[in-house]
Amino acid sequence: MPQRKIDVVLASVRRLIRVGASANLLNLLQKQHPADLAGVFGELNDRERQTAFDILLDRSPRHAMEALSELGPEAGAHLLEGRSAEDIARYVQELESDDAASIVEALPEELSRSVLDLMRGKQETEVEELLEYPEYTAGRIMNPNVFALSEELTVGEAITELQAARDVEMVFYLYTVDERRHLVGVTSLRRLLLVAPETPLKRIAVGDLLSVRVDTDQEEVARQVASYNLLAIPVVDLENKPVGVITVDDVIDVIKDEATEDIYRLAGVSTDDNVFSPARSSLRKRLPWLYVNLATAFLSAAVVKAFEPTISQATALAVFMPIVAGMGGNAGTQTLTVIVRGIALGELTFANSRKALLKESLVGIGNGVGIGVVAATAAWLVQGNGWLGLILALAMIINMFVAATAGTLVPIGLRALKVDPALASSVFITTLTDIFGFFAFLGLGHVFLRHLVAAG
Amino acid sequence: MPQRKIDVVLASVRRLIRVGASANLLNLLQKQHPADLAGVFGELNDRERQTAFDILLDRSPRHAMEALSELGPEAGAHLLEGRSAEDIARYVQELESDDAASIVEALPEELSRSVLDLMRGKQETEVEELLEYPEYTAGRIMNPNVFALSEELTVGEAITELQAARDVEMVFYLYTVDERRHLVGVTSLRRLLLVAPETPLKRIAVGDLLSVRVDTDQEEVARQVASYNLLAIPVVDLENKPVGVITVDDVIDVIKDEATEDIYRLAGVSTDDNVFSPARSSLRKRLPWLYVNLATAFLSAAVVKAFEPTISQATALAVFMPIVAGMGGNAGTQTLTVIVRGIALGELTFANSRKALLKESLVGIGNGVGIGVVAATAAWLVQGNGWLGLILALAMIINMFVAATAGTLVPIGLRALKVDPALASSVFITTLTDIFGFFAFLGLGHVFLRHLVAAG
Repeated sequence: MPQRKIDVVLASVRRLIRVGASANLLNLLQKQHPADLAGVFGELNDRERQTAFDILLDRSPRHAMEALSELGPEAGAHLLEGRSAEDIARYVQELESDDAASIVEALPEELSRSVLDLMRGKQETEVEELLEYPEYTAGRIMNPNVFALSEELTVGEAITELQAARDVEMVFYLYTVDERRHLVGVTSLRRLLLVAPETPLKRIAVGDLLSVRVDTDQEEVARQVASYNLLAIPVVDLENKPVGVITVDDVIDVIKDEATEDIYRLAGVSTDDNVFSPARSSLRKRLPWLYVNLATAFLSAAVVKAFEPTISQATALAVFMPIVAGMGGNAGTQTLTVIVRGIALGELTFANSRKALLKESLVGIGNGVGIGVVAATAAWLVQGNGWLGLILALAMIINMFVAATAGTLVPIGLRALKVDPALASSVFITTLTDIFGFFAFLGLGHVFLRHLVAAG
Repeated sequence: MPQRKIDVVLASVRRLIRVGASANLLNLLQKQHPADLAGVFGELNDRERQTAFDILLDRSPRHAMEALSELGPEAGAHLLEGRSAEDIARYVQELESDDAASIVEALPEELSRSVLDLMRGKQETEVEELLEYPEYTAGRIMNPNVFALSEELTVGEAITELQAARDVEMVFYLYTVDERRHLVGVTSLRRLLLVAPETPLKRIAVGDLLSVRVDTDQEEVARQVASYNLLAIPVVDLENKPVGVITVDDVIDVIKDEATEDIYRLAGVSTDDNVFSPARSSLRKRLPWLYVNLATAFLSAAVVKAFEPTISQATALAVFMPIVAGMGGNAGTQTLTVIVRGIALGELTFANSRKALLKESLVGIGNGVGIGVVAATAAWLVQGNGWLGLILALAMIINMFVAATAGTLVPIGLRALKVDPALASSVFITTLTDIFGFFAFLGLGHVFLRHLVAAG
């Protein structure tokens, strides 16, 4: 965490707000890149953020709206809520249609409807159309301004079209369509420069191109763009007509969001929780997960309770039982993490899951032996009872094997049920390793009780 | 995990290898995109993979080498090890210098040196130069073929230069330099098309451009490209002269790798472990982490051992003690995950860490009260002893507060010591929550022992 540029800006913004130096504040804000502004806004408190945003919005609406868009739809929409529907309708038109759609959708329902009613012309239609695609699909994240030309045009004509095009911001590929507007080819701007102007597009366009359908899941889009190193991928409708384009910068957002989601879900944190979300909202989001864990903790406590008479005769069992359960949980989490990430990266499929199960089981037994022997020796030295060590080692091997198989099968099973494996797996695994750990260790302790009491 | 295209290809590849149909196999392999081929290679066993790769390498060396490059440096280098240094030197020249450098570096040391000695001309120098930059820096991942022209040229001259350039694969930005080759501006290919050929580049180039230095950390590069939505960022040396360019597809790899690294490290899994790494290598990588955990588990067992006499008088304490420790661990993991991700995404800095600590402490106390009350009631109902419930609730609040503060401070502290916070935090947190959980619960149990024994 080096001193960041935005920390310096942040300090100045705060100071200028405090002393009410609006002109200086506006001047400072206008100089920042929208992405940096979003970073600054993200760290201001609600009142400061609204003040800074309002000053910028009145004088540089496009700049303000771009920063708002970078800030994310919820926080962004919140900054606009005090404005009239007319103003909002005008402001969101400063944005690309896909960004405008996200903001409009995040407004309170009634306001959102009024804004859509008030938006006029091309953008209105585009925003409304985008909002019709389900969340997390290609249709929702695409930019509807796709640059597609008839393959019958010449390169010279294409360049003229390109010069006339206004909305199309980041063109690097030029798509070609046949007479029925089906997507048929692609070429790059660079190629346009390398051939004579009278060359037909058809001659230089590559026919075997990748595209995704409007209903393709955004994760699948990200996977394709990333693995084929594309800068953009065209989106087609059900008839293979180009209706939009997804650029690599949108894909980066998808990849980052999905990674955060995986990391969070493994730990039982809700995806919209973060470092600076208000304490009350974090609490509301984290408590339910802890209650689920509490319920499962009582399940494993019930196992311990069943062995209470055994423990009362050999309290050494109480000392070592958390070790068996805890180590199983650790090993299970390792397996689970590798499996969940393997599913997310597309390496693990149903077809090769048997191979994964076999491998993880071997690792589980190996871990159990490796940890069991050391733990048994330590317990023997500490407690002076070889039987206790033996029981500890056996229980450890059993529990590590359970951890490995469960850590593999639970996420694969959840995936088969179309549940995100990252979401629910970890609570299953720790519950299983707690229950099996306690049961194996205390059960063995019960069987060999006279050896423990005799020597203990 | 839908049926993937590569699963179909994979089955055919296996079948063709089994029946020895080399011609058909070659034909099938040649039709696949290098990224897909890498996917197929990744799932073949070592012998099959070598067979398929060798067949392709002999007939379509560039295609084979591109697939090998997508497979990653270690696995890729392994496939080449059977070849002579002369052959390898020839094959790696099919690749871009940055990809070639990764492969050559992953070869066994002696072979790697011979290959470098045998490489000739421009590529040799480029590869050697790239290998001089430390790992994980901009210099290491950049492509040294940066397209930079004197700002004194006209647009027409620039287009001529562009048409003559061979190596420069994905050009979308054109960088301009002053007479001393300092990076001074940038323009896009599209802008070249929009102005008259006699326009000087100086007129259309934007001066205020972003660049990174060769020694910039790759995570920082990724952060800049992602937050400013760039397609490429120029890399400059210490004198601000352009020496390379990093394109967004390399950045995607960095983002994915860093996310995997964070996810893995939080679970104590080594970054080069994955679903299909051999069982023995996974075991060797996971056991050390489990031994660290075992050592800390013995630490917390020592706390329990100190209270053995107390437990022997009130065995109900043994039943509930894992709940306190486990729930603290769960809550600590939630906080830890949010903090580690906040650091990785650049949201959390030293400057705002006090705010984060305050927030997480509040959440910790809130969680403690919320969970404590429910757990206490349940314990009271199960065990019929109100004192036990009270002790459980108090211990839970203490431990959740410890979990929240430790979950915030440990990763921030590790970051200050320049240790990856994802790496070591989780073992610290669970050790702390185990020790404090046992100590708080059993300690309170000891203080109120007569109430527990009287009613128990």
